[in-house]
Amino acid sequence: MIITLKDGSTREYGEPMSIYDIAKDISEGLARVACVGEVNGEVKDLRTVIDSDCELNILTFDSDAGKHAYRHTCSHVLAEAVLNLYPEAKLAIGPSIDTGFYYDFDMPPLTREDLDKIEKEMKKIIKKGDRLEYFTLPREEAIQMMKDREEPYKVELIEDLPEGETISFYQQGDFIELCAGPHLMSTKQIKAFKLTSSSGAYWRGDEHNKMLTRIYGTAYTKKADLEEYLEYLADIKNRDHNRLGREMDLFTTVDVVGQGLPLFMPNGTKMIQKLQRWIEDLEDYEWGYVRTRTPLMAKSTLYKISDHWYHYKDGMFLLGYDNLEDLNNAEDASREIHGVQDLKMIENDADSDVYALRPMTCPFQYYVYKARQKSYRDLPYRMAETSTLFRNEDSGEMHGLTRVRQFTISEGHLVCTPEQIDEEFKNCVRLAKYCLTTLGLEEDVTYRMSKWDPENSEKYLGTAEDWNRVEDAMRTILDEIGLDYTEATGEAAFYGPKLDIQAKNVYGKEDTMITIQLDMFLAERYDMYYIDKDGSKKRPYIIHRTSIGCYERTLAWLIEKYAGNFPTWLCPEQVRILPISDKYDDYAEKVFRELRRNGVDVHVDHSTERIGYKIRKAQMEKIPYMLVLGAKEEEENAVSVRSRFAGDEGSKPLSEFVRQIVEEIETKAIRKKEVEEK
Amino acid sequence: MIITLKDGSTREYGEPMSIYDIAKDISEGLARVACVGEVNGEVKDLRTVIDSDCELNILTFDSDAGKHAYRHTCSHVLAEAVLNLYPEAKLAIGPSIDTGFYYDFDMPPLTREDLDKIEKEMKKIIKKGDRLEYFTLPREEAIQMMKDREEPYKVELIEDLPEGETISFYQQGDFIELCAGPHLMSTKQIKAFKLTSSSGAYWRGDEHNKMLTRIYGTAYTKKADLEEYLEYLADIKNRDHNRLGREMDLFTTVDVVGQGLPLFMPNGTKMIQKLQRWIEDLEDYEWGYVRTRTPLMAKSTLYKISDHWYHYKDGMFLLGYDNLEDLNNAEDASREIHGVQDLKMIENDADSDVYALRPMTCPFQYYVYKARQKSYRDLPYRMAETSTLFRNEDSGEMHGLTRVRQFTISEGHLVCTPEQIDEEFKNCVRLAKYCLTTLGLEEDVTYRMSKWDPENSEKYLGTAEDWNRVEDAMRTILDEIGLDYTEATGEAAFYGPKLDIQAKNVYGKEDTMITIQLDMFLAERYDMYYIDKDGSKKRPYIIHRTSIGCYERTLAWLIEKYAGNFPTWLCPEQVRILPISDKYDDYAEKVFRELRRNGVDVHVDHSTERIGYKIRKAQMEKIPYMLVLGAKEEEENAVSVRSRFAGDEGSKPLSEFVRQIVEEIETKAIRKKEVEEK
Repeated sequence: MIITLKDGSTREYGEPMSIYDIAKDISEGLARVACVGEVNGEVKDLRTVIDSDCELNILTFDSDAGKHAYRHTCSHVLAEAVLNLYPEAKLAIGPSIDTGFYYDFDMPPLTREDLDKIEKEMKKIIKKGDRLEYFTLPREEAIQMMKDREEPYKVELIEDLPEGETISFYQQGDFIELCAGPHLMSTKQIKAFKLTSSSGAYWRGDEHNKMLTRIYGTAYTKKADLEEYLEYLADIKNRDHNRLGREMDLFTTVDVVGQGLPLFMPNGTKMIQKLQRWIEDLEDYEWGYVRTRTPLMAKSTLYKISDHWYHYKDGMFLLGYDNLEDLNNAEDASREIHGVQDLKMIENDADSDVYALRPMTCPFQYYVYKARQKSYRDLPYRMAETSTLFRNEDSGEMHGLTRVRQFTISEGHLVCTPEQIDEEFKNCVRLAKYCLTTLGLEEDVTYRMSKWDPENSEKYLGTAEDWNRVEDAMRTILDEIGLDYTEATGEAAFYGPKLDIQAKNVYGKEDTMITIQLDMFLAERYDMYYIDKDGSKKRPYIIHRTSIGCYERTLAWLIEKYAGNFPTWLCPEQVRILPISDKYDDYAEKVFRELRRNGVDVHVDHSTERIGYKIRKAQMEKIPYMLVLGAKEEEENAVSVRSRFAGDEGSKPLSEFVRQIVEEIETKAIRKKEVEEK
Repeated sequence: MIITLKDGSTREYGEPMSIYDIAKDISEGLARVACVGEVNGEVKDLRTVIDSDCELNILTFDSDAGKHAYRHTCSHVLAEAVLNLYPEAKLAIGPSIDTGFYYDFDMPPLTREDLDKIEKEMKKIIKKGDRLEYFTLPREEAIQMMKDREEPYKVELIEDLPEGETISFYQQGDFIELCAGPHLMSTKQIKAFKLTSSSGAYWRGDEHNKMLTRIYGTAYTKKADLEEYLEYLADIKNRDHNRLGREMDLFTTVDVVGQGLPLFMPNGTKMIQKLQRWIEDLEDYEWGYVRTRTPLMAKSTLYKISDHWYHYKDGMFLLGYDNLEDLNNAEDASREIHGVQDLKMIENDADSDVYALRPMTCPFQYYVYKARQKSYRDLPYRMAETSTLFRNEDSGEMHGLTRVRQFTISEGHLVCTPEQIDEEFKNCVRLAKYCLTTLGLEEDVTYRMSKWDPENSEKYLGTAEDWNRVEDAMRTILDEIGLDYTEATGEAAFYGPKLDIQAKNVYGKEDTMITIQLDMFLAERYDMYYIDKDGSKKRPYIIHRTSIGCYERTLAWLIEKYAGNFPTWLCPEQVRILPISDKYDDYAEKVFRELRRNGVDVHVDHSTERIGYKIRKAQMEKIPYMLVLGAKEEEENAVSVRSRFAGDEGSKPLSEFVRQIVEEIETKAIRKKEVEEK
């Protein structure tokens, strides 16, 4: 047989050989670092025997597949170590993941000390360097073996496989693991690893099952790479908004209030207030929006007109309705009566006294539009609202400020003539980009055009023709403004395609931060129209959009981006005045008033602590500016400035400092760090 | 018998005589205007026969009792007229009320033309001048008579009276009415009346009963008085926020959204935004509050800790709970586990996964307080929140912006040491008065100290001793700041006494606009404490308060107070620029930018209408300032000012107008009207 290698060279062998042996034949060095083989493009275990011509690529840790095999082997080492130390522990599952691996055990929770002990045992196992042997058993024998070994989770897993299946295992020493591989040849190949954390995890991810103990770890081929990753992990932890936001007293959660319902503390409240007022004034005074304020709940009827009800009901909070079965029957009957001609019928549906908290603002703003007849001269009619919405997220889904049950969004709808769509949509993108740039976040986002899924057309309103037309129109708009975007099928709203602006959190999880949507159907559903120049009634198009997204999520993003070192304009406390003793309280008061008069958020630290302590405290709290005041400053009507950006900035006339900080705040400047803080 | 009259004079009669005859004996003139008699302080029909010594006061229309008899007689005339014109109509009830009278009929709704027709018929009846005859019947005969007359509602009313009762009637001509009186002697005595409106009203005020047609009217003895009242009524109608607020496009309501859930239109939204930002900055920067932002819903557990659950559950919106009976049983069990020692038990009550929309902010802010340990140095800890609340009002209760299902309040809680209560409470009153004065509303309020009801002590936490102590403390505080207040028993919160600031709407209905409450119990319930100087844990007191109350209600009040002519700083559009032709669009744009740069809400009327039309339109929309721009203004960099206050104010340099209006806005001046608008 002839083996063609990646570099194009060939090797000929007279008899079947394993990938590992071929690697060894190429070089001992390669065999030592080989993790898996790619045979005709398919990833295979090193033990796989080749018996015919093929293209072969020996993959090392540098490849994704290699990393996975390497780390998966390390998870087996972890499982062996745990069983050595905790013979009562039961094995669940232990895959590799993008950043390392984990293993779930049925055992009590573990401390960091426990993890250190397990690491030590893993090192012993690696030093011993057992080979991993591969073998298979018929399904029944496999079940019996796991019963004998008292591994009930493994028994359950095998029982889920079809009868007559052959079950594969890997064994190192006495440790046998149900596993499809691929794996390294020996535990000895693992050079550097670390158990990073442990947490609870439900068996099979189902909250009705038993809570197991999950151990996370990672592994590298070089110690330096591992250390770099661990440093990165530590940085992530320090930036994680769900941790840092609590440490900085921006928000908290309370069991008796409930999950996904954060309470904003004074500092977090002030930041959201600043963001909110900025966005409101920007929309109203710079981008031509009118502002609305509409109720947080409505009759189900309102949501039925649009079909939102059928798409979102499971995630909606219903109010005081005590027979959900009746409700479901009732709505199936009413589903049939859609279309403009039936709008009046739905509106008059007196039976429908089920109320629900709103998951979106659309229909509320449509009724603001409808309250007075509009002509073409009133269009584009741009409505904005600081809108609180509710989604009944599953408890497993909720996270910090990014996945919550109640959130407030800079919502808006633009009602346009067909001719206006183009420019209005572009302006929505420009406004979003302006907001991102101002917050220093623009480089962290990607753009995604979210399209319908023709394979699941029943999930969308309208026809393929409608969708093709509107998606083409959106593509043209995006191309014209030179946006660099990807396209994603099946991510559209049920009423039209979206431009989604995506960002990743510190852990690499991607979320939609901002969305701008083109809606070609709902104006008809709600019988919205405008009187055109010729006096005829015309249907408008609607753009659904947000300028900066949800305030909660934006705050989370800012915390992670700046690790709490926010741009000055956003800081709940922009300046702290530190009189070196109470002799300077009068002068401190004067400086305070002058700054306050100029709109600066400023506090005086009147505590009797020493000045060094006061400075360190302010630094810990990430206050951008500290003004140290003593005899010299009072005499010269000056302030000694210490900043988060440049450290000691020396003494300045008070008026000069006021001028500088007012400018920094008004321009929303993002001052860069010039020196390391001490 | 000896009759003592009001002026102290006496009259002696040898035989029993009716009050009417005695009046006639005094003077024919008195008899003509007599409405009722007051015998030994008790109001009696003029037909009442006096047969023993008594004090007698003959009352005319000038007395309340006289007015009631006069107008009640007019309601009988109305009923007779309706039966004459609409023989199918059935009589329900027709009392006098403070402002006139009404009568409910089972008949189709009426137009203004119908009312005019009925008025004509009433005039005929009055001209005919039938005497009203009084008679009684045994209950069974009374029922039979009304059955014969086919008056089912009267039958029902009589059947509700005890068996054996004697039933009284008044008759004029053929018209017989079930009635206890008192009445005038003849329909002829009615000099001036008007049917003011008609509306639907449920039989016996119960929405499960049939909707009847109610006709409202009023009657006076002098035509001039009637006309004055009708003018007043028209003014009220013009001020009624539920009418004017809609006309001015401040808010609207939508059937498919639901009752009690107003949608604020752009102008109303802008006004609430201005109020809200003003109050937020006032509280935060002038009165030492920190601001919070807490969730709009929580587990029922949170409300159970305080007992709010048991007091307010019926008015709370529960979320997606589908078995209310279980819920009621569950809570009865948990009710027993109150007290600090049980707080942990309630908090850990994992079963309690019923969520509810919040009717108050208290416990949410308590958990903000509790998030970090507080010492005496942190107190008073003043928390404020722009807080949206929900109350599930009955459909009959809801009205405009004053009685709604969702509202937003300038909420706040001050956590104090016992020594701080006095000064902090006073400052809360001062802040409320400051807000009222700024809005020009201070003279329209009354102050009420709301006390517990010792007769219903089970409705309150704590003992009589507790209540006496705290109510005394509050009384001292109110006296010290020289407040003029009444006291009301049974109006306290369940956790403490309140100072309620009351105001009346245009129809005279009183509502609480602002409340400041002294709470001696809830800190214990939520295990709130502070570390005192000596290191020991102490329970704080809590003041619950609002500075301006609900924004919706405040807006309603402002609409009615100013009949829509709001102080300039509150106007959604403060200035309208009216270029006399499009030649001056560039200059209009310059003026617009200059005003906008100075924070003024300004628009340009670019329409092609004539200048006179533009001015009238702006006047109709109650815009405070109009700037007319033409060649002369552009040349001189000036503006021709027309104001709502002084009419034509002549030409001013642009810079002078900007300075004036910025000052008017910044000082929140309430500029008085100097001339009538044309």
